[in-house]
Amino acid sequence: MNPATAPRAVPSRRVGIDVGGTKAQAVVLDPAGDVVATAQRPTPRGDHSLEALIDVLIELTDEVGHEGSVGVGMPGLVTRSGVLRAAPNLDGVADFAVAELLSDRLGSNVHVDNDATCATVAEWLLGAGRGTSDMMLVTLGTGIGGGAVANGALLRGANGFAGEFGHMVVDPSGPQCPCGRRGCWERYASGSGLAMLAREAATSHRLRDVVRQAGGDPQAVRGEHVQAAAREGDPEALAVIDDFSRWVALGLANLTNVLDPELFVLGGGLASGSDLYLDPIRRWYGDLLYQPHLRPIPRIEFARWGPLAGAVGAALLAELTR
Amino acid sequence: MNPATAPRAVPSRRVGIDVGGTKAQAVVLDPAGDVVATAQRPTPRGDHSLEALIDVLIELTDEVGHEGSVGVGMPGLVTRSGVLRAAPNLDGVADFAVAELLSDRLGSNVHVDNDATCATVAEWLLGAGRGTSDMMLVTLGTGIGGGAVANGALLRGANGFAGEFGHMVVDPSGPQCPCGRRGCWERYASGSGLAMLAREAATSHRLRDVVRQAGGDPQAVRGEHVQAAAREGDPEALAVIDDFSRWVALGLANLTNVLDPELFVLGGGLASGSDLYLDPIRRWYGDLLYQPHLRPIPRIEFARWGPLAGAVGAALLAELTR
Repeated sequence: MNPATAPRAVPSRRVGIDVGGTKAQAVVLDPAGDVVATAQRPTPRGDHSLEALIDVLIELTDEVGHEGSVGVGMPGLVTRSGVLRAAPNLDGVADFAVAELLSDRLGSNVHVDNDATCATVAEWLLGAGRGTSDMMLVTLGTGIGGGAVANGALLRGANGFAGEFGHMVVDPSGPQCPCGRRGCWERYASGSGLAMLAREAATSHRLRDVVRQAGGDPQAVRGEHVQAAAREGDPEALAVIDDFSRWVALGLANLTNVLDPELFVLGGGLASGSDLYLDPIRRWYGDLLYQPHLRPIPRIEFARWGPLAGAVGAALLAELTR
Repeated sequence: MNPATAPRAVPSRRVGIDVGGTKAQAVVLDPAGDVVATAQRPTPRGDHSLEALIDVLIELTDEVGHEGSVGVGMPGLVTRSGVLRAAPNLDGVADFAVAELLSDRLGSNVHVDNDATCATVAEWLLGAGRGTSDMMLVTLGTGIGGGAVANGALLRGANGFAGEFGHMVVDPSGPQCPCGRRGCWERYASGSGLAMLAREAATSHRLRDVVRQAGGDPQAVRGEHVQAAAREGDPEALAVIDDFSRWVALGLANLTNVLDPELFVLGGGLASGSDLYLDPIRRWYGDLLYQPHLRPIPRIEFARWGPLAGAVGAALLAELTR
């Protein structure tokens, strides 16, 4: 890294931390956008976990060293002023003023946003969406999260709660969702969704080879079993992958009707199966898109950044608000 | 109107024309945003209807008089450069360069956008959404259209096709939609949707009084019959209104998960029944919203502008691009 060639406004080391349910991941970006350092700590749990979390964030920034800005991605609803309203996977969080608390301790600017919003920023500025002005990240993990860029700006919504794509209802008589409603998109098109579709197929006496590999119990079939069998060409496993891909595409088509992006970037844990999903998702998307003959078909790509996306995007948050 | 008090940048007469399937409606706005003149012509049909349409637009601007900008709202997919790609209700339209053709003839700036996008602009700048920076218009008519404002800017999408809310799929095994898919939101939550829900109730031997009023044939029951009976307190008609309102609310909740607006403005032909729908829509929306306890509940209001919304918004298009 040669500081003489760096854009003057970009600090030489930008720190980003992604707080997950089990660990907090820190990265340092150099002015070229390369990750030049990483560090991890377990996410504190139990009593006093919020005070402990602030300590962990301080330890991480100390370990990687920070100058200039620090960004943090949090798994939950984050207001525009950096208050975590709630986080299903963190104990006892309610109205936790992360940005203010951390900024007081560090004595520097801290930017906080939703983790999926951070991942969107990473893919938009330094990943698969580089150069686009209308794109959406959809993360397919245990559930579905994401974020959107429209007209060259990140969409946060009136309260910072935009991008909760997983809870679009796509079948009001579908399976119960932990959120209290029925048939949310993430019941079908996430890791849990793939597992559910696989168990449905197994209990209907399809997926016989997969059930055998899972030890003979249809209820023990998981997404990984189906993926492994599909890679070996098992037609019943491929049928489940196709059904799953149709649900993914249906939600993408719905989002297209709202925002008309030029690109979808698919991230999250299921991105590791992109070799299996990409073609069927694209095919179903072409089928399900409204007026496909009248428009350029939006592209669908898998994310560039894997598990570091949230931390990289957190490090970039300060870029957006300058 | 006193020109001395008008903002200098606003032309004294802004012309807007909304081209509908049956008529073209023109308005003139004064600098205060009041409608000071209107004119109408039938929309040309049949052979050479596109050339004839340009003539009609010229006649209308001549009739109302124009200085400065002219805006046109068109019923269909309009690109960012003002090309109408297709319009289901206008004969033979494909790649019709309205903005360019009209601008050549008029010798002035012409702005063209989708009619629902124009109505969004009218409600945002001069209607129920005045002063908001994140709002959505949802027009409940024969189908569902609309538009969105996020972060204080109109969302057009990568190709100008944002806001096709009616074709979000909310039940993949639902009724066939003319667009080719099944269970689009507008199958349930539009004028056609209300009629379908009413016929379903009638053929299941509910709505007996309504069927009698419709002449005894369950298939002859229309939304208007249900509305009239509901206003007289018929509990079976009120149940259909409640079911319809739940479908409206379900789509609004889905849109909230994508964009997190502070306000929904409901327009279109069904706005005339707002006294019947508003309370049940708000109640169901509160039930269907994701994490309602963690956020301000977005407001739901009916539109200020009725049938003039598209023309008023068309007249305002030039404001957005200055």
